[in-house]
Amino acid sequence: MQLYSFFNSSAAWRVRIALALKGLAFESCGVNLRQGEQRSAAYLALNVSGSVPLLADDTGHAIGQSLAIIDYLDRCFAQVPLVPVEPLARARVWEVAHLICCDIHPLNNLRVMQFFDREWNVPQAERDEWTLHWMRTGFAALETMLAGSFDTGRYCHGAEPGLADCCLVPQLYNARRFHLDLTPYPTLQRIEEACLALPAFDAARPENQIDAV
Amino acid sequence: MQLYSFFNSSAAWRVRIALALKGLAFESCGVNLRQGEQRSAAYLALNVSGSVPLLADDTGHAIGQSLAIIDYLDRCFAQVPLVPVEPLARARVWEVAHLICCDIHPLNNLRVMQFFDREWNVPQAERDEWTLHWMRTGFAALETMLAGSFDTGRYCHGAEPGLADCCLVPQLYNARRFHLDLTPYPTLQRIEEACLALPAFDAARPENQIDAV
Repeated sequence: MQLYSFFNSSAAWRVRIALALKGLAFESCGVNLRQGEQRSAAYLALNVSGSVPLLADDTGHAIGQSLAIIDYLDRCFAQVPLVPVEPLARARVWEVAHLICCDIHPLNNLRVMQFFDREWNVPQAERDEWTLHWMRTGFAALETMLAGSFDTGRYCHGAEPGLADCCLVPQLYNARRFHLDLTPYPTLQRIEEACLALPAFDAARPENQIDAV
Repeated sequence: MQLYSFFNSSAAWRVRIALALKGLAFESCGVNLRQGEQRSAAYLALNVSGSVPLLADDTGHAIGQSLAIIDYLDRCFAQVPLVPVEPLARARVWEVAHLICCDIHPLNNLRVMQFFDREWNVPQAERDEWTLHWMRTGFAALETMLAGSFDTGRYCHGAEPGLADCCLVPQLYNARRFHLDLTPYPTLQRIEEACLALPAFDAARPENQIDAV
């Protein structure tokens, strides 16, 4: 399998964690978002949406969108299940994942910052305040959800890492890049620490990627 | 079941379609986003993220995030499957759903417009241009994906409506509200027309909701 990825894309990182948790080998193909490689004709021929990650499986099929890829991997490779089977547990994990991947991350990614800079000339400090606003809003909800549930364990859901953790760890890393004060989110920090102690999460970190620049 | 919903929330509409396709009765509880009811103490006690939709099932469990709710319904109620079982077909449907629900909709919803207005005093015309930009970007990718695939049928995936259609129809409605020229997206328009001919999609329309204002 080949994963088209950018070392510090949160969305690509989610998939790298899932692959590592399942012990799946893959070839990492760097797509430098800062240099606009995602808009090259060659890449758009693979992925019309011009986003990373993209997974090309061994049958020649290509799948975009991080959560679709992780669901696919979970269907095809039964080892280390990432999403529970029981409907309510499953719903809880998907809810956490979507809270991060729909309510926080899309508002703060590179193309949004580029729009603000290019179209509206928004000063850096105001762009940062925008980013922090959506992180604070989302993290406050997540902290309350996770701290208040008996289903939360060492990880977001129970005693084993899964889909929700694949989404949480890159989002917290992103928050640290923006110097967000994480003190109000002790449960998120505790889960992050537990995750980063695992080799799979460590191997997937941005600084450990071959395309890190 | 109770669905906490706002009549013209795209995310709530997705779930209303899914419920109608499966023939499931539900009580609709209006949460007026324009009046800020989603931030009332009573609603936050149900849903800490303060968003709609929220599904309260008959066992007293509450599930947030539209895609988590639809996946839950698909697990619990086997009639009219909304997501295919075969992994590649499933991945394709989830990819389309996430392209809409992560790459388009989060950038254009009410709370984002309120931020621009409140914090940055962005003029209406520029807010609209922002909205149209992300719709055009996402729809161009979707049109190419759907027009170029043998898996596309009368609906986004094959001959029966499903999850991807639940996401597409509200997003196109939203685009019409912003007077986006849909001429470049004939496949999306064709699928929308096929969907809206079905009673389930019609029943779920904003103007047919009891909380429409």
